[in-house]
Amino acid sequence: MRILVLNNRYKEATEYMAGQLAAQLRALHFEVDIDNGRMEPVQNKPDLMIVLGGDGTILRAARQYGQTGIPMLGVNMGTVGFLSNIEINELEFYLERLLNLDYTVDERMMLEISIYHDKRAISKNYCLNEVVFKSPTPRMLSFILDVSGQVMSTYRGDGLIIASSTGSTAYSLSAGGPVVDPQLEAFVVTPIASHITSKRPLVVAPERVLSLTPLECSEAVICIDGQVKIDFEPEYRIIIEKAAHKLQLINLKKKPFYNLIDARLLGKQGL
Amino acid sequence: MRILVLNNRYKEATEYMAGQLAAQLRALHFEVDIDNGRMEPVQNKPDLMIVLGGDGTILRAARQYGQTGIPMLGVNMGTVGFLSNIEINELEFYLERLLNLDYTVDERMMLEISIYHDKRAISKNYCLNEVVFKSPTPRMLSFILDVSGQVMSTYRGDGLIIASSTGSTAYSLSAGGPVVDPQLEAFVVTPIASHITSKRPLVVAPERVLSLTPLECSEAVICIDGQVKIDFEPEYRIIIEKAAHKLQLINLKKKPFYNLIDARLLGKQGL
Amino acid sequence: MRILVLNNRYKEATEYMAGQLAAQLRALHFEVDIDNGRMEPVQNKPDLMIVLGGDGTILRAARQYGQTGIPMLGVNMGTVGFLSNIEINELEFYLERLLNLDYTVDERMMLEISIYHDKRAISKNYCLNEVVFKSPTPRMLSFILDVSGQVMSTYRGDGLIIASSTGSTAYSLSAGGPVVDPQLEAFVVTPIASHITSKRPLVVAPERVLSLTPLECSEAVICIDGQVKIDFEPEYRIIIEKAAHKLQLINLKKKPFYNLIDARLLGKQGL
Amino acid sequence: MRILVLNNRYKEATEYMAGQLAAQLRALHFEVDIDNGRMEPVQNKPDLMIVLGGDGTILRAARQYGQTGIPMLGVNMGTVGFLSNIEINELEFYLERLLNLDYTVDERMMLEISIYHDKRAISKNYCLNEVVFKSPTPRMLSFILDVSGQVMSTYRGDGLIIASSTGSTAYSLSAGGPVVDPQLEAFVVTPIASHITSKRPLVVAPERVLSLTPLECSEAVICIDGQVKIDFEPEYRIIIEKAAHKLQLINLKKKPFYNLIDARLLGKQGL
Repeated sequence: MRILVLNNRYKEATEYMAGQLAAQLRALHFEVDIDNGRMEPVQNKPDLMIVLGGDGTILRAARQYGQTGIPMLGVNMGTVGFLSNIEINELEFYLERLLNLDYTVDERMMLEISIYHDKRAISKNYCLNEVVFKSPTPRMLSFILDVSGQVMSTYRGDGLIIASSTGSTAYSLSAGGPVVDPQLEAFVVTPIASHITSKRPLVVAPERVLSLTPLECSEAVICIDGQVKIDFEPEYRIIIEKAAHKLQLINLKKKPFYNLIDARLLGKQGL
Repeated sequence: MRILVLNNRYKEATEYMAGQLAAQLRALHFEVDIDNGRMEPVQNKPDLMIVLGGDGTILRAARQYGQTGIPMLGVNMGTVGFLSNIEINELEFYLERLLNLDYTVDERMMLEISIYHDKRAISKNYCLNEVVFKSPTPRMLSFILDVSGQVMSTYRGDGLIIASSTGSTAYSLSAGGPVVDPQLEAFVVTPIASHITSKRPLVVAPERVLSLTPLECSEAVICIDGQVKIDFEPEYRIIIEKAAHKLQLINLKKKPFYNLIDARLLGKQGL
Repeated sequence: MRILVLNNRYKEATEYMAGQLAAQLRALHFEVDIDNGRMEPVQNKPDLMIVLGGDGTILRAARQYGQTGIPMLGVNMGTVGFLSNIEINELEFYLERLLNLDYTVDERMMLEISIYHDKRAISKNYCLNEVVFKSPTPRMLSFILDVSGQVMSTYRGDGLIIASSTGSTAYSLSAGGPVVDPQLEAFVVTPIASHITSKRPLVVAPERVLSLTPLECSEAVICIDGQVKIDFEPEYRIIIEKAAHKLQLINLKKKPFYNLIDARLLGKQGL
Repeated sequence: MRILVLNNRYKEATEYMAGQLAAQLRALHFEVDIDNGRMEPVQNKPDLMIVLGGDGTILRAARQYGQTGIPMLGVNMGTVGFLSNIEINELEFYLERLLNLDYTVDERMMLEISIYHDKRAISKNYCLNEVVFKSPTPRMLSFILDVSGQVMSTYRGDGLIIASSTGSTAYSLSAGGPVVDPQLEAFVVTPIASHITSKRPLVVAPERVLSLTPLECSEAVICIDGQVKIDFEPEYRIIIEKAAHKLQLINLKKKPFYNLIDARLLGKQGL
């Protein structure tokens, strides 16, 4: 069995733990690759992924390997996290069960973000949390949101967030969006500093296709899970839909979502 | 075929139109009952329901007849409505198709609200839009919300709204909740004037069971679709879950939900 | 020198402490009256007031005795309070300075609320925190707010709060209003569950006169500092202006307002 | 008498009208300078300023000439504006009164923004609407706000807006701030997409001094009235206080503030 261990190259402790874990797994005769984010994604197809870090590291793993359909265990190191399943000090305890594939899997909807120039798709990305369309300057953007062919109306303001339910507790929440149950597949559409004060967050069914067409957007950026940044050209159009694949999150320990919400609302670090 | 015509006894025009429509249908040899809300629900089981009025009249029809699983056509009279499918002046045009059962049906999740005293269920109600737990006085309520056994935490304030997606554009929206796609089955949990400013609306998966336990609620009322009012006793507990049946809304004409949202956000009358 | 000691008849500890304090003061040859809220306001004009309790007791004292212009010391018992200056366990320490009148005074703007029937004033009240115009039922109110003769526009929803800066951290905050510096004289106008989602809280200059005229308000109540409740008749009109007098709050100890805000935002009991 | 005519170099119509007006005034033997924003501020001290354009042009005029204490007339061209007093088509009608100095003046508080590096002030700016401290990237800022020496607490999120009452209807409103009466001198402190959901807008008395100290702000910008942009260095500290001078806005025609609010809330262009 081949195992991919991922960590966060900016957090030394995760780098160290990744080395330790790889040595331990190799001693048990597993094949192990390590991806700390410095290089291109690993080509060897693993049977299992172990992600050491916070939610940011899991977002990267989901974005880069989510399409493979290979189960992923989030192991939290140091801060509170919504996406991880166990804490680093619990890894020893759960390792045997993990290696025996004795776990259930939680599936999470991912977003597919396509950018079109004229009618040609020029980029396609997947993400777990959200895509943000935003002005990097104090100048307002204005654009049209269209849901499955139904023109919603014009937005004006700092920008728009289109999040998954999983991403509803991240940036979307800060911008005023609701907390959405991760068991529920949905898009959460949250305007950022809307000039039109009547605008409200929307929760959209996952079968819908969202399309964002700029009106006045001389400068704008697209941010995908806070990690990929694309400069927006005025002729671009963004299409967001549910990805065909789902992220496979390993569930060794029942971690109750609703108990964590209050900590997040108070802005606890790491959430 | 037996047809039930419903109207709003407080709106004379709907009373008049119900009489006209009944006469027209009887001339076509249909059996017709009329329910204007003055008396107990009609016992004859109809094959079709036609509701003349605004969203309030459809809410009543849904509450009283939704469990029968009989399809219902909402015919809007006078004001804009989210729940009606056609306008009164379109009824003549669509009548033949309606009577030939040439239509599709949109299913809407309904809520089942059970009130417990100690461990005994003392009342059960169904509704389409929302159940509201609220203080009728300036005194704050405090209570615990529990989602499928996970204690969320304590709320303090004027009260709480638990709405369906359908109800998300009604009272829940006024209290700060998101607009939720009617195609998406979900509970929308929106606090009213929360003393704890960090509280946010929640969108909860329909498989969950919500339970509300009072802490300090010397006076409180439960309102169901703004139509049924129950005085709350301090020992009560409220359980909200998805009803086993769905409301069957007749769809003769494609009515795009997303185009209506802006009008609702601006508080257009009748929405 | 005559001293009026006020307490909260619903909190036994305040009753007990009021008796103790009165005995101590009488032993020092002061004349003392006690007002626990059970009877009509005391007629003897005091030179000093000492209020034992939480913010509710101070609100009552302000409403009943604020016009006298006599300085008032808030002594907090048990819960955190914005209006009190010292804690009960600090009273012994500060008593000598208090009785020597060695203190500064903070002045707080009070509201004057007049209710008119046709053109006749039928009641006049003063309050420190806020006046609330609200529906006791799930039925929406609609009304017009007019600021110094400028018609603002129509409101529809659960109601409206008109608070002073002092009251901005009480009910107005729960309904979505801003925190306003108590040093700043202003009205804070906050809608409760506004059906029109574009509405926002307003902060109005103290020279303005606010006038509230009902459109559809079959049932409505007016609540003054959460303590006085007046049933609203459809022909009533409410005029809110700055009272001619100010509340004189004794300041023995510098209590920094901005340090308390975070605790209030998290809904700490007693705030 | 010397008159300074200002216009917006990006709007040709204002350029044309400035030329026309200058010619007309010179024919009447006034001395006239024109400032279209292309060059350094005019050095000749005028007795009167006439600003042709929208609110942006008035903001520039206020920033560059507000300290002179010379009265300024805002003449609106094309869009709705809060700051202008008359419309361009009314200028002919009011010109005689203007030139006879037959008008009243509204004074508006301006902000003084000082940036410190260590203990040294490295820049000082004045503005009418707001100063924004903001992240240009998706990375959160964290910083401490301190009000006259009272540490408020930590903020985390996209940034913070500190507006005057005049600026409360601009960007601060989009970010969730209240509408503040322009007659009331105050600071409006509004967080942008606060990670801590309990945060609320604050309205602070004009005597206070606000100080913003960064915690984690690797990249941040300061924007002054949306027109001046300063890159923020991690060791900077920002002090905001009320400027010693006030903007002198010429009032020829009573323009009621409260009547305009609803149009702004709906995001009408130009407001």
